[in-house]
Amino acid sequence: MAARLSDDERAQKLRPLLAGGWALASGRDAIERSFVFDSFTSAFAFMAAVALHAEKMDHHPEWFNVYNRVDVTLSTHDCQGLSARDIALAAHIDRVASKLL
Amino acid sequence: MAARLSDDERAQKLRPLLAGGWALASGRDAIERSFVFDSFTSAFAFMAAVALHAEKMDHHPEWFNVYNRVDVTLSTHDCQGLSARDIALAAHIDRVASKLL
Repeated sequence: MAARLSDDERAQKLRPLLAGGWALASGRDAIERSFVFDSFTSAFAFMAAVALHAEKMDHHPEWFNVYNRVDVTLSTHDCQGLSARDIALAAHIDRVASKLL
Repeated sequence: MAARLSDDERAQKLRPLLAGGWALASGRDAIERSFVFDSFTSAFAFMAAVALHAEKMDHHPEWFNVYNRVDVTLSTHDCQGLSARDIALAAHIDRVASKLL
């Protein structure tokens, strides 16, 4: 079972993500980020790369795509909030996006 | 430029989709359908197949995915409403889904 991030973890691991482009979602313990690529092809390449990793780590994003934009929300179902798995997935997502943006 | 569906086209081409599982969106001239697969892998396989086709026809869905569920909305940006391209894409989406559901 994943556990919710402690206050210390939020200060140490979540804060850098929030400084780097992620934002806290409103109304739930989740983080979100919107990515805008140069085309649908690039947006879907991003989604495909993230999907393979997400399946491997058995932790999946919620995401909305319209044309070249992908809005990603991360939270952990097990604990109904942010866990270390969201931190890890967010970091991976940023790495993938940095190659495609 | 895509043109909005005429009343005749709505009666002839849209009605079968609405009878087959699609619904009119509220607040805009669009159709939507939710698909629930057996896993994230199946949901993303569906999205990948639709994405390749969408890119080929240069007409893309708006869609939201969380785990095994994909919510699809179709509308045509050019005409700010439903066009023949949405009918064609919906039919293709149903064909892809029928193989994976």
